[in-house]
Amino acid sequence: MQTRSAQRCFGGNLGFHSHVSEALGGLDARFGVFVPDGVDAASPAPALYALAGLTCNEETFATKSAVLRLAADHRLVMVFPDTSPRGAGIPGEDADWDFGTGAGFYLDATEAPWSAHYCMGSYVNDELPTLVEANFPVRPDRRGIMGHSMGGYGALALGLSDPTRWHSVSAFAPICHPSDVPWGRKAFSAYLGPDRASWAAHDPTLLLRAGKVHPTTLLVDQGEADQFLDEQLRPDRLEQAAAEAGQSLTLRRHAGYDHSYWFIQSFIADHIEHHSRLL
Amino acid sequence: MQTRSAQRCFGGNLGFHSHVSEALGGLDARFGVFVPDGVDAASPAPALYALAGLTCNEETFATKSAVLRLAADHRLVMVFPDTSPRGAGIPGEDADWDFGTGAGFYLDATEAPWSAHYCMGSYVNDELPTLVEANFPVRPDRRGIMGHSMGGYGALALGLSDPTRWHSVSAFAPICHPSDVPWGRKAFSAYLGPDRASWAAHDPTLLLRAGKVHPTTLLVDQGEADQFLDEQLRPDRLEQAAAEAGQSLTLRRHAGYDHSYWFIQSFIADHIEHHSRLL
Repeated sequence: MQTRSAQRCFGGNLGFHSHVSEALGGLDARFGVFVPDGVDAASPAPALYALAGLTCNEETFATKSAVLRLAADHRLVMVFPDTSPRGAGIPGEDADWDFGTGAGFYLDATEAPWSAHYCMGSYVNDELPTLVEANFPVRPDRRGIMGHSMGGYGALALGLSDPTRWHSVSAFAPICHPSDVPWGRKAFSAYLGPDRASWAAHDPTLLLRAGKVHPTTLLVDQGEADQFLDEQLRPDRLEQAAAEAGQSLTLRRHAGYDHSYWFIQSFIADHIEHHSRLL
Repeated sequence: MQTRSAQRCFGGNLGFHSHVSEALGGLDARFGVFVPDGVDAASPAPALYALAGLTCNEETFATKSAVLRLAADHRLVMVFPDTSPRGAGIPGEDADWDFGTGAGFYLDATEAPWSAHYCMGSYVNDELPTLVEANFPVRPDRRGIMGHSMGGYGALALGLSDPTRWHSVSAFAPICHPSDVPWGRKAFSAYLGPDRASWAAHDPTLLLRAGKVHPTTLLVDQGEADQFLDEQLRPDRLEQAAAEAGQSLTLRRHAGYDHSYWFIQSFIADHIEHHSRLL
């Protein structure tokens, strides 16, 4: 692990690091970690992973969400993964803003040529927590996950798939039913192939329909002026599937709010309290 | 005035706008304004202007400082000017990151070719407040000014020059004595010409030495791990001049903090309280 930058913030330490990732087929992967004041090996804290959305990188959520003061107040270590592999060199990976670089979709690709490097699912679920827990003062038994848009989908999908690994889950404007919306269909078709049966393990709505529930309440915030609401996000599908599955869900709709980090800033305090209470 | 984007944030409204600026010789100028919930024509609020530093634009301070929650809590309208003219087309204006575009230095250039457009002093001091006060629910009798680095210098220079216009002043890591450091000498030589007598009206340390004081306490925060501290910022000069001039100054030095917005985030709550108390 190599530290690319380190800075003091709110009495704690924020660092951005890189390492050679096995899950990503030997590519360099970057991530950020914020360790609040007073958290150390003798007194470790829970870790909350924050997954950013399409086009973003490991700096976006840390920079734009105003989360660090809250993490310091609640004594949570924050982990900011990158959203996707970088530099795989696959033809076409840089062609679209909603596919390839910047759009790893927090799953393991099974289709060539993507499968050699596009395995952000294993990376965020397994490899990064192992690395973080070996190098930072975090409790390996208390992990939370949150995210925005594509990252909100990632948080829901990973949290519902493995509740023993992710002890608290929340999302801002998540892609709730990727199998059935343009962003998700485009990514899943390429990364997972045309057999839609394989898509279900990565779709929060379909996971709920298959009986995958989380023992805690899921917290989801959604802006009603979000430009992607009807075509890409579909929280109504998540809400219905949660009701049918008996999954506790707090879905809040906010009049006038859009898809931006200004929306995230406005409600992130509630998410940090949610995770802090559960972790 | 044209609104380029508008979004809800913390129950209020954040907009980014543009207009044709007379002070900038007819160039389009951009700025942001945040109006907290409950502030309207019947119940206007004080306005706090936040000046960003070298290479930044009207979005930087709003995006990276985590100030909006605090402004909402304290019921302050925030105004985010751009740092410099854009598109003047002067040869060389884009050559360096610390001069020309992105480095307007909050003064009125007197030397050709800069004097036709590089007049951010009049723009921030006069034209923008007039525009803001005509279009937003702000009190014209209560204005504060703060800034970072080049913007911290701007806040101190404008505040000390005209205390009847700027009723509260603070700065993060300001360029305290621009006449005597590389960034300032480079800008002042080009914008104001070689006669150093004309520089004094734009140098916070020299303004204090000339007896220009502000009736309130100036709040200045400085990181001790700031990479520009000794060569460019020189808060020691400001401190000495303030002591000699009888200017009340709270200068806080913070071990381990650098020049970044992570530093600003960490201490901005104290600045908002400072301005809120005085405004």
